[in-house]
Amino acid sequence: MGQQTLPGFRDFYPEEMAARRHLDAAWHAAAAAAGFREIDGPVLESLELFTKKSGDEIVGQLYSFEDKGRRPVALRPEMTPTLARMVAARAGALPKPVKWYSVQRFFRYERPQRGRFREFFQWNVDVVGAPEPAADVDAIAVAVDGLRRLGLGPQDLAVRINDRRFVHELLRGIDVGPEQEAQVLGLIDKLGRDPKAPERLAELLGDRRAGELSGWCENLPLDRAPALGELLEIADESGLRGYLEPDFRIVRGLAYYTGPVWEIFARGASLRSIAGGGRYDGLIATLGGPDLPALGFGMGDAVLTELLAERGLLPDGAPVLDAYVIPVAPEMLASARDVARRLREGGARVDLPYGPVKPRRGLKDANRAGARHAVLVGPDEWADRSVRIRDLTSGSERLVGVDELGASDVLAS
Amino acid sequence: MGQQTLPGFRDFYPEEMAARRHLDAAWHAAAAAAGFREIDGPVLESLELFTKKSGDEIVGQLYSFEDKGRRPVALRPEMTPTLARMVAARAGALPKPVKWYSVQRFFRYERPQRGRFREFFQWNVDVVGAPEPAADVDAIAVAVDGLRRLGLGPQDLAVRINDRRFVHELLRGIDVGPEQEAQVLGLIDKLGRDPKAPERLAELLGDRRAGELSGWCENLPLDRAPALGELLEIADESGLRGYLEPDFRIVRGLAYYTGPVWEIFARGASLRSIAGGGRYDGLIATLGGPDLPALGFGMGDAVLTELLAERGLLPDGAPVLDAYVIPVAPEMLASARDVARRLREGGARVDLPYGPVKPRRGLKDANRAGARHAVLVGPDEWADRSVRIRDLTSGSERLVGVDELGASDVLAS
Repeated sequence: MGQQTLPGFRDFYPEEMAARRHLDAAWHAAAAAAGFREIDGPVLESLELFTKKSGDEIVGQLYSFEDKGRRPVALRPEMTPTLARMVAARAGALPKPVKWYSVQRFFRYERPQRGRFREFFQWNVDVVGAPEPAADVDAIAVAVDGLRRLGLGPQDLAVRINDRRFVHELLRGIDVGPEQEAQVLGLIDKLGRDPKAPERLAELLGDRRAGELSGWCENLPLDRAPALGELLEIADESGLRGYLEPDFRIVRGLAYYTGPVWEIFARGASLRSIAGGGRYDGLIATLGGPDLPALGFGMGDAVLTELLAERGLLPDGAPVLDAYVIPVAPEMLASARDVARRLREGGARVDLPYGPVKPRRGLKDANRAGARHAVLVGPDEWADRSVRIRDLTSGSERLVGVDELGASDVLAS
Repeated sequence: MGQQTLPGFRDFYPEEMAARRHLDAAWHAAAAAAGFREIDGPVLESLELFTKKSGDEIVGQLYSFEDKGRRPVALRPEMTPTLARMVAARAGALPKPVKWYSVQRFFRYERPQRGRFREFFQWNVDVVGAPEPAADVDAIAVAVDGLRRLGLGPQDLAVRINDRRFVHELLRGIDVGPEQEAQVLGLIDKLGRDPKAPERLAELLGDRRAGELSGWCENLPLDRAPALGELLEIADESGLRGYLEPDFRIVRGLAYYTGPVWEIFARGASLRSIAGGGRYDGLIATLGGPDLPALGFGMGDAVLTELLAERGLLPDGAPVLDAYVIPVAPEMLASARDVARRLREGGARVDLPYGPVKPRRGLKDANRAGARHAVLVGPDEWADRSVRIRDLTSGSERLVGVDELGASDVLAS
């Protein structure tokens, strides 16, 4: 038996699953609050769907193979190609803007390391069919709201933002031509992470132009970026003051971004990227879909879970029950089952032993199971059609009639 | 661009996703109500994990390949091997009984047909470490509760149940030896589905023995099955009266079942299996884990979704918003953003246009978006720090102060 998961893959025991669901819940709530609707596609797709999006390092990290029908297939490394296919298939019928999100798993054959897995979970939020900067702000606001619901605020997070059109214009101003742009963007992307990046920029552009570029990194000339200025104003109106920081170093590696690009970082010693997104107006057409403006972001589970754990913002993952039902004598087992059924019908989370137990052992099991109450089913009380409910925090007890057990507030303490 | 999913795979647009989440919610709620805790494992595992469980038709349906590290791997076709691995890794530390569930995706390379997909979603519920028949009933009750929460009751469902120990004993009584048992079980499993099965049973066993067996199918001699009798009694105590039907034809194809086996069928013209489960006491040890008694069931999404659709029990999947905010003049856009932010902070699902719209168009968009209310942000009201909230069902309007918009009941109508 393979006693272990594959390298870079994870088992989720109840404790880890509780943490994952904690993220999920915040993500779903934030997206729904802003009117986004959930979608999903297959985990396995035609290989071709992913290779069409050229210039992408992701293709080298694909889990690809031939299925039993000899079709080249691959596990999805990201959501955008599937989203583009889904939009393309119904482009005419879908009211614009299309506001979709998903919380799903993805696969990349990368070297596993801290905060990076080969199977990971990602929240994707996209707006299709909206050219307005308010749409970019909508996505950023949803990302921030998802993190706010997890306990992270402006003191914890910075949304660093730039605009590819603006970068393009500035680079043209120092005579960086189209043939050099990809390389320069790659080096800008590495500034702050790779100590050799400034040197290589100077080699490529000469000291004067590299100096100018480095000046923009120190202090972004926002007066030359009216589109970014408008976006920042809308962001202010949308409650994002304190989060957004214009930053020339944010260019996003991927070739397909066409407008605002942004990343959310955790403030603090180790500056880690929690989410990244941007506008990709030409991409859906490139993927064979209609020519619609589009933008979106992805937020993964790995770095965020680490950050939340460090800050004590994850649930402890201990079991939680509303009640544990204890038959105080072996002949009370059938009655205990009846009691459990009634409590569950009232909406409570309830467990009970499968066979006779000593009451003392029952109480121990109740505590171990994280029960807030023990419901003691004894012969004397049962003869009066009632049970004893003990609050396991305070130790207080009360008698409750059997017919009241289905009430939704019977275990409110 | 691959404009389509692979055969047997599905895209989930918001409408289909709403149906999937409707099932998920019922499954999660039923499992949690009975004290089960959620787990998950990787979608991709070592091939060896799945091939160890021998005598299983599933192996022939695996999506298997070599990863970039030359490891033989496969997409999971079922949950049990992963569950066994997870139990094995922590067997000593886990309090018994272990009550775990999952709602996840699985993959089988089968011929796609109505109610069967190559990628499907399945609810798995398992109890490990409990030899008591009450544990079998616990699992059955959870399955029934999940279906009850979807609107299906005893008039819609039958839980057909048998016991492998009993089958074994009866077969021994008519001198069916161990070498014939697998073949006979296979034919019993096909009775009622394959018209040739009775004939082949007669060929194999002779008319007398086949006749006896066929008599058990008509009328199960429960007096000779005390274990099954005890289980049925506990099921009655647990509120399952009206669901359970002892049926000798339920033997479950898989070789590893050792005790009670059961399937849930939809009553009605086309008798379709919605869920199946049973006790598999030796399996975890076979898979390399500790020798612990265990049982569980799986319930897939495909047949169930079809059944619910037929009975009108699926949500319609239309979009739902609590409010759509309409700036009644272009200069009110910033105020509209402020209003939307306040409403969302109060917990409401709120959308608004990205740019100026004519109020009439705004109201049309509000209706299309499924909004229950339109919030009209006009210059006169705004000067008084208030907005108009229109109930889009009744058409009634009221003035609400801006500072009240964050209250959780501001949109209660």
